[in-house]
Amino acid sequence: MPQFLDSRDADFEPRFRALLEMKREDAPEVDDAVAAIIADVRRRGDAAVIELTERFDHLALTPETLAFSAGEIAQAIEKVPAIERAALERAAARIRAYHIRQRPEDAHWTDPEGASLGWRWTAVDAAGLYVPGGRASYPSSVLMNAIPAQVAGVKRLVMCAPTPEGVSNPLVLLAAHLSGIETVYRIGGAQAVAAMAYGTQTIAPVDKITGPGNAYVAAAKRRVFGKVGIDMIAGPSEILVIADRDNDPDWIALDLLSQAEHDESAQSILITDDAAFGRAVAAAVDKRLETLERRAIAGASWRDYGAVITVRDLSEAAGLSDRIAPEHLELCVADPVGLSEQITHAGAIFLGQWTPEAIGDYIGGPNHVLPTARSARFSSGLSVLDFMKRTTLARMTPTALKAIGPAAQTLAISESLEAHGLSVRARLDRLNRAEDREGEA
Amino acid sequence: MPQFLDSRDADFEPRFRALLEMKREDAPEVDDAVAAIIADVRRRGDAAVIELTERFDHLALTPETLAFSAGEIAQAIEKVPAIERAALERAAARIRAYHIRQRPEDAHWTDPEGASLGWRWTAVDAAGLYVPGGRASYPSSVLMNAIPAQVAGVKRLVMCAPTPEGVSNPLVLLAAHLSGIETVYRIGGAQAVAAMAYGTQTIAPVDKITGPGNAYVAAAKRRVFGKVGIDMIAGPSEILVIADRDNDPDWIALDLLSQAEHDESAQSILITDDAAFGRAVAAAVDKRLETLERRAIAGASWRDYGAVITVRDLSEAAGLSDRIAPEHLELCVADPVGLSEQITHAGAIFLGQWTPEAIGDYIGGPNHVLPTARSARFSSGLSVLDFMKRTTLARMTPTALKAIGPAAQTLAISESLEAHGLSVRARLDRLNRAEDREGEA
Repeated sequence: MPQFLDSRDADFEPRFRALLEMKREDAPEVDDAVAAIIADVRRRGDAAVIELTERFDHLALTPETLAFSAGEIAQAIEKVPAIERAALERAAARIRAYHIRQRPEDAHWTDPEGASLGWRWTAVDAAGLYVPGGRASYPSSVLMNAIPAQVAGVKRLVMCAPTPEGVSNPLVLLAAHLSGIETVYRIGGAQAVAAMAYGTQTIAPVDKITGPGNAYVAAAKRRVFGKVGIDMIAGPSEILVIADRDNDPDWIALDLLSQAEHDESAQSILITDDAAFGRAVAAAVDKRLETLERRAIAGASWRDYGAVITVRDLSEAAGLSDRIAPEHLELCVADPVGLSEQITHAGAIFLGQWTPEAIGDYIGGPNHVLPTARSARFSSGLSVLDFMKRTTLARMTPTALKAIGPAAQTLAISESLEAHGLSVRARLDRLNRAEDREGEA
Repeated sequence: MPQFLDSRDADFEPRFRALLEMKREDAPEVDDAVAAIIADVRRRGDAAVIELTERFDHLALTPETLAFSAGEIAQAIEKVPAIERAALERAAARIRAYHIRQRPEDAHWTDPEGASLGWRWTAVDAAGLYVPGGRASYPSSVLMNAIPAQVAGVKRLVMCAPTPEGVSNPLVLLAAHLSGIETVYRIGGAQAVAAMAYGTQTIAPVDKITGPGNAYVAAAKRRVFGKVGIDMIAGPSEILVIADRDNDPDWIALDLLSQAEHDESAQSILITDDAAFGRAVAAAVDKRLETLERRAIAGASWRDYGAVITVRDLSEAAGLSDRIAPEHLELCVADPVGLSEQITHAGAIFLGQWTPEAIGDYIGGPNHVLPTARSARFSSGLSVLDFMKRTTLARMTPTALKAIGPAAQTLAISESLEAHGLSVRARLDRLNRAEDREGEA
């Protein structure tokens, strides 16, 4: 049974805090094993990757077969049913249309002192996408990671997706094909992350690695961070639904379950201003759990981490939502836009009862890689900006340097950085001497 | 003596690679000590912070004196000479004017299917700035970290700056005052980072921690990452100067030394298309090193990590520059803008001989917190965006859901996520039933 809380209860505050601080993930300690794998890949390159793939994925590869050939990809893609292909193409087009609007603008201006200032955005040269094997091998995640990179203008985009026992997912390969991925390596785990970060004889290193993965992949990403850029380390998925009584309890139940079915550690929370509606949703969840395919997973998540919170009014719900800072926030209320304006911290907001969160997972357009574990307080979902970087530009004229150089020199002296000051001073002296000569002439 | 390389030499490529891969930092292993400090601060709060401050900074504090009082700050600020105050105010105004232009724009649109899409940027609620004590206690860094936060709209901005033996830097306190910092705690090290991340009885937790620090601070920032956001962990500073023969060798020498004087691990590299000019700059460096106040530090940096590289032409210089991906890049050539357009990876570019890098450290306007250790390949300097986050927005209408919902359902089924599909299906069924009824009527 999920927790039932009511903001009018005397013990609400400590119980709500406990809910916020609930530890949902018990990641195994794999850091030492991962460190050894990375060192091995750095030392032996392809040989290490091949040996580790044989050990973990029971798959024998050679340097020549590390990547799928163009023929293998074409053959796999042909197997995808037309309806799935059309759905994936539709999703890719919508995700692309959304992300194209995220392309940042360069800026150049001249300030009153005559200094030219600005900045310039450029894409990273190469990005690598990690795609898990098995249950969490989602074609939608390929689109969500690769399309922003493609839109950013990344020149070389590669993917690593393990194929345990040689089994691959044709839809994942199609998604890669649709989103501009050049090469797909059939490797996984920490060895794949190490190969993308440091390169091997066959695999050229990339500059940025993104994508979900298990504890080994997460630990490897943490370790190679600095050598390459990484996206955030995602925790278990979460949804918060704020719903008033004018909703179908079954719809809200399905929305809650669509997070819960991801993972036993996922968390689904309902906040409502109507206790009876909250109970009706909980009953609808139980009913759906009787038949849901993934009822074991969804049921465990709902039982261990689910919650139904009754509040006095929707303003109170907005305040609690900001304390939760949910990854996904659904606002099923009469004025969802108005309520959203009271809320600051959320990865993605789904407005109104016709916007189930699942739309955002696949086809809405916004990215589904979103900040978890309350990190929406300080971070954002994946975007085109994650595959770009900004170079600042400054150009002084002699006039500008005369105007602002002396202040720089003063600050350099105050920080005891003499050469900093002298580098400005030497130029100002030249300008002053030139003026003196002009004065004499 | 620095290294001298020439791109025409047979051994150039391996020597250039060795230069790229040179390890300049030997950070002590402090992670276990830092883990213990963080655990202690989490457990005992103020008491732990006070005890650790007494041990490391030889300073006895109470919960009441953890922060400077308004009177203490006013008194310290009064001691700042007028010329330094004016320089700092000038710098703050210029940095603010540059960063205001970085404020990102929200977006809202309706697509052809009738779906409303967009995103919204908001500031983090609270940010904490770390400022080192002793030699690296730079007022300019206070401005460079705090002003972007202030411009972003961060509501609560605090600072931790250790004051060993009780000695504080009035200019640092003035910089804090000028950039909207509310509270300055006189604590440092891993205990300060832990206090800002987790909070104590006296210190409210923040959402984002930025600012430079020693190995303990860096390790603490890595450990609290996820609980709060952090900026990047900066390595030793670097400058690359590309200069042709039409420069004063002494100016270029001073520019190289203005990085070298920061730290024995700093790196200064000159690339020129004229070997004789390269030798003249090296001679000018030696001459300046005879008298420079920080000649011990700057001399060690130049000797151990400095390099002078002669190339065939400036295009070749641009190519090498992108492989170095320097933190600071000075282009002292006839057409610096043209050359800059050949270059993709750099934290900050300083265009032309009248733009010494030191201008950027203090007063140019762009941020001086920049990516080091080749990370300009995938990351950017500090900006207003580091203190903001984006929430994506989506709102379907019944029409939009009918248009794109079926594709989402198809993809959900292909990923074996039944509840995802059902959450869409249930809504589509309702719409279809309504249509059927209309048809019958």
